[in-house]
Amino acid sequence: MQLGMVGLGRMGANLVRRLMRDGHEAVVYDVNPDAVNELVKEGAIGADSIADFVSKLSTPRAAWIMVPAGSITHDTVEELASHMTKDDIIIDGGNSYYRDDIDRAHRLFELGIHYVDVGTSGGVWGLERGYCLMIGGEVETVNHLNPIFETIAPGYDAAPRSATRVGEISAAEKGYLHCGPNGAGHFVKMVHNGIEYGAMAAYAEGFNILKNANIGKHQRDADAETAPLDHPEYYQFDINIADVAEVWRRGSVIASWLLDLTALALAESPDLSEFSGKVSDSGEGRWTALAAVEEGVPAPVLTSALYSRFASRDLDRFGNQILSAMRKGFGGHNEKSAQ
Amino acid sequence: MQLGMVGLGRMGANLVRRLMRDGHEAVVYDVNPDAVNELVKEGAIGADSIADFVSKLSTPRAAWIMVPAGSITHDTVEELASHMTKDDIIIDGGNSYYRDDIDRAHRLFELGIHYVDVGTSGGVWGLERGYCLMIGGEVETVNHLNPIFETIAPGYDAAPRSATRVGEISAAEKGYLHCGPNGAGHFVKMVHNGIEYGAMAAYAEGFNILKNANIGKHQRDADAETAPLDHPEYYQFDINIADVAEVWRRGSVIASWLLDLTALALAESPDLSEFSGKVSDSGEGRWTALAAVEEGVPAPVLTSALYSRFASRDLDRFGNQILSAMRKGFGGHNEKSAQ
Amino acid sequence: MQLGMVGLGRMGANLVRRLMRDGHEAVVYDVNPDAVNELVKEGAIGADSIADFVSKLSTPRAAWIMVPAGSITHDTVEELASHMTKDDIIIDGGNSYYRDDIDRAHRLFELGIHYVDVGTSGGVWGLERGYCLMIGGEVETVNHLNPIFETIAPGYDAAPRSATRVGEISAAEKGYLHCGPNGAGHFVKMVHNGIEYGAMAAYAEGFNILKNANIGKHQRDADAETAPLDHPEYYQFDINIADVAEVWRRGSVIASWLLDLTALALAESPDLSEFSGKVSDSGEGRWTALAAVEEGVPAPVLTSALYSRFASRDLDRFGNQILSAMRKGFGGHNEKSAQ
Amino acid sequence: MQLGMVGLGRMGANLVRRLMRDGHEAVVYDVNPDAVNELVKEGAIGADSIADFVSKLSTPRAAWIMVPAGSITHDTVEELASHMTKDDIIIDGGNSYYRDDIDRAHRLFELGIHYVDVGTSGGVWGLERGYCLMIGGEVETVNHLNPIFETIAPGYDAAPRSATRVGEISAAEKGYLHCGPNGAGHFVKMVHNGIEYGAMAAYAEGFNILKNANIGKHQRDADAETAPLDHPEYYQFDINIADVAEVWRRGSVIASWLLDLTALALAESPDLSEFSGKVSDSGEGRWTALAAVEEGVPAPVLTSALYSRFASRDLDRFGNQILSAMRKGFGGHNEKSAQ
Repeated sequence: MQLGMVGLGRMGANLVRRLMRDGHEAVVYDVNPDAVNELVKEGAIGADSIADFVSKLSTPRAAWIMVPAGSITHDTVEELASHMTKDDIIIDGGNSYYRDDIDRAHRLFELGIHYVDVGTSGGVWGLERGYCLMIGGEVETVNHLNPIFETIAPGYDAAPRSATRVGEISAAEKGYLHCGPNGAGHFVKMVHNGIEYGAMAAYAEGFNILKNANIGKHQRDADAETAPLDHPEYYQFDINIADVAEVWRRGSVIASWLLDLTALALAESPDLSEFSGKVSDSGEGRWTALAAVEEGVPAPVLTSALYSRFASRDLDRFGNQILSAMRKGFGGHNEKSAQ
Repeated sequence: MQLGMVGLGRMGANLVRRLMRDGHEAVVYDVNPDAVNELVKEGAIGADSIADFVSKLSTPRAAWIMVPAGSITHDTVEELASHMTKDDIIIDGGNSYYRDDIDRAHRLFELGIHYVDVGTSGGVWGLERGYCLMIGGEVETVNHLNPIFETIAPGYDAAPRSATRVGEISAAEKGYLHCGPNGAGHFVKMVHNGIEYGAMAAYAEGFNILKNANIGKHQRDADAETAPLDHPEYYQFDINIADVAEVWRRGSVIASWLLDLTALALAESPDLSEFSGKVSDSGEGRWTALAAVEEGVPAPVLTSALYSRFASRDLDRFGNQILSAMRKGFGGHNEKSAQ
Repeated sequence: MQLGMVGLGRMGANLVRRLMRDGHEAVVYDVNPDAVNELVKEGAIGADSIADFVSKLSTPRAAWIMVPAGSITHDTVEELASHMTKDDIIIDGGNSYYRDDIDRAHRLFELGIHYVDVGTSGGVWGLERGYCLMIGGEVETVNHLNPIFETIAPGYDAAPRSATRVGEISAAEKGYLHCGPNGAGHFVKMVHNGIEYGAMAAYAEGFNILKNANIGKHQRDADAETAPLDHPEYYQFDINIADVAEVWRRGSVIASWLLDLTALALAESPDLSEFSGKVSDSGEGRWTALAAVEEGVPAPVLTSALYSRFASRDLDRFGNQILSAMRKGFGGHNEKSAQ
Repeated sequence: MQLGMVGLGRMGANLVRRLMRDGHEAVVYDVNPDAVNELVKEGAIGADSIADFVSKLSTPRAAWIMVPAGSITHDTVEELASHMTKDDIIIDGGNSYYRDDIDRAHRLFELGIHYVDVGTSGGVWGLERGYCLMIGGEVETVNHLNPIFETIAPGYDAAPRSATRVGEISAAEKGYLHCGPNGAGHFVKMVHNGIEYGAMAAYAEGFNILKNANIGKHQRDADAETAPLDHPEYYQFDINIADVAEVWRRGSVIASWLLDLTALALAESPDLSEFSGKVSDSGEGRWTALAAVEEGVPAPVLTSALYSRFASRDLDRFGNQILSAMRKGFGGHNEKSAQ
């Protein structure tokens, strides 16, 4: 079928490629004309404005937005809607906050326009691997778009069937899932990313413990303020981190795609010295923590992972100064240089 | 080559089977004669005592111990050593504390006996899937045992090669790794399990947030002590948890073997009502936290995951009573029934 | 000066008493006429409706609302405002969300009514001890109310002067502080309560560790899943928790009012067996965590304290069931009874 | 009575002063003769070697050691014991690991020497305020030393009596407590410091949230990786942190001595710019976490507080580099400069 794509960054462009490979027709638009031209060369129908883009879509139109989240998504939806007509469909495949989906769907509903929110996971690997799709919206609209989702998703063969599943192959087993009404798609994607933060931190902390397994070889000064290591003889290991990541990929309980990526990176750069260790966070990790707090369910792991990223960027600084001030206050301790 | 196995529980017996399938000779012993007989039927050489077991091994002997960790391992090592001679090898494949390995290897070294510690991951799936092996010991001894490790490990085909690795295939790429001197094998296995705790908790917390995404449908009483949900309209989702686990297996960033297992379990029992939620912990999770603290590296995710297991077993009870007592003390608040 | 009070629960009534003791005039209203009558007996002017209440106040009116937070506050403000006239003042002394203050102040501003948000700490002890007041609003309005605040607050003598403060005694040194524009009062009160959660949990966890210092006396079963205690000889202490709380009140670094309350409770009931350990949370702890996440500053301690309260009420249950299902999946482990 | 003091640093010297003021006799020794001379001028009996020190004490001797923890304590105990005779008493008032006390007491017991471990809290303020004493040892030995403890401790007047306590004034109410057999004193002191870490972090995190309450005033770039602040209008507060610390000292639930110290520091230096925020940790915080893990009781707040100190010293660095490597791996994200 036909799909329009607004936003031809890495992910948008690759979605279009994956669709065209499978025989779908793509109408494309981006604020950057070069991005449009590149896909036109590959067979897409180009547009030079949102108005032009909408005019080139057949009704009922289906326009997928793949732009950076936040205000740009909002503006794009608004402009698209202003050119569209009843029964057209706007799909937001970016990383929007699910609450914005709910509000947006209500507004568009009044115009007769259908809205679908799609959480899209797969990153830079999705072109080949397919994208895992978490979808929110009305049943009929989502069903109408199923051919698109089926092409974009990794497909049934991407993983061995769960032995406890029998009968017909479900959409989930092909890599896309209608999660519920509007917002549900991005809600599930949000939690996906929250879990991602937690799982990433689990590996990161573990590798850090391995890296420091030789700490008994280094003299640590003992004074009134710092206790010496009680048993340096138990911390004498120089562990090859890259090899550990590699060996865990085979047969261990913690084999995962994130581990595959870590092994890839470490084989190339065992010390990762090209990275400073200032770790960004995007909205989903924060929103997951907010959801946990509002629902009243404990999420110490997911939230710790988020906070560790904040701390990696020194956002704990004033708090730490308070601690140093207190220590000086009760014990006369002056700050020392780090460990 | 020949290997002796002491301890024929699920893992020990399957290691023997995997070895025999690949043409190795196995001498086996267990305190339970039925376990011995069963493997004898499958081609192993049985023994009816540790002394008998040692006498049936050709020198230099290689005896693998696969018994529950702790004092039983200790006693088995001692008894084996008392029957062994110079240059024999004792391999501990169980979940021993790496510090015990270091101490034990020193003692055995004085007797001329070599000791190898092997962290073995793979659980009930290892017979078919192979076991990921993390090995500590002297280079020569470990090399001598390589044919055994090669058979037990999953092998090179168990995962696609990391694109950043070139040249000859390393042992790590076959699923076994000589991590360092004695203790290094169980140290790496310990951290593996620590990561496992963190990653498991990441999924568990995420699924719990999904499960409670409909909390806005339930009336929550507001009074002086409990704030109502500010925006119930954003928590109206009834999400099919089992389908979410399934869809994430394909193309998502958090695809992993742990997720595969979760999807398996949820497909069979979406509410998991057969589980009470009292989660055990074994030594490795605790030891990983101890190592983090002693090394002085932060491990909030791994430690939170451990503590959540403690809390699942109500080990936070007295602390919580203290909190209730304080709340009554300053605010006159009486305890309410949950939420 | 004159102050009206709506809401004569424990805190509202005691605020009125504290004001009248110091010579202020109080007009009072509550939905419960008995509460009104009781204060009338003590010298207050009673009202039998909001309309009556407003009519009995001299202009510019100052009406303090002390009702359970949330929708009741909202409705009370609306009704008060509907009877008030330009330049009147509404003070919300309850536990409102500071965002509601900001929104509410904007709305009232259009009616010419001034709004002041006051975070009030002191609990059931405030009548004697005074209440710590954190105030948000316009400078002139707040200054106009200073005589009220000065009476309600504990006063300069409540704590020894900080040696680094010199010159005139500031409001903060008397126990009330104009924190900023509307919302600032409840924002600071919110963080106060967030800190309270963290500090309470610090004591609770510490006392729990003391309580379990005799764990080496109890046999702990060792099996493949549970490691035994390595050194039971180091956990043989039966510590008198109540006496520890008492001794720490004198000269220790962690002396505090919360500790005073804990010592009070433990002296009366050393095992706290009248408490079940289901710990409620009110809005402020949650809002503090939300603010930390939104600001991007790490708050692992405050958030852990909140999550522990959730867990005390079994809100981690489905997550724990997921963990048990995973453990069964990879290791064949069945759940055991707790520890 | 008479007491010998080895180690005349800040705390040791002040303990001697407090004892002499109350009429006790002090024999003093330090490796630094100046420290000895200074106290001799104030009335103490000086010694120029451990042997000389022991010879100047009357039997049964009581020698209090106040030296930096660890190997120095060990060596001092050994040398003292070598000069002492049956029934003499060695008191360790420093920050020793309680396990060392247990081992040490056993060894000394065989020589007929009694050992007492005393956790001493009070810091630089103890000379005036008195020291909170947590004591471990045999009943008779501890009772024999009671006159010393009574002088050192803050005394009954240091805090109002807990209303739930009646009858005779207990030692705990005077600021010293016999907590149990050897090790119990330092065990309770260890937990005291663990709580201190948690409570300090609670304030630190809270003040950091207040400090960043104006984050809505600063432009935060939104791109594919970083979500913008959803509601900048709710983060517009410039809060006077020093005044908040001051106001909370009076009547609030979180009034404490740590808060007093914070208020002191902030009044002098509102930005604390003289502190870098690299926060040291001494042994007790670590040991408390180890005890929680070994006992199997959750201590997320205390452990988070410890880990935050580690992170303040960049000990999370390699873990963070792993995170950045993963992010680049799946999403092509390059690291950005902080926030």
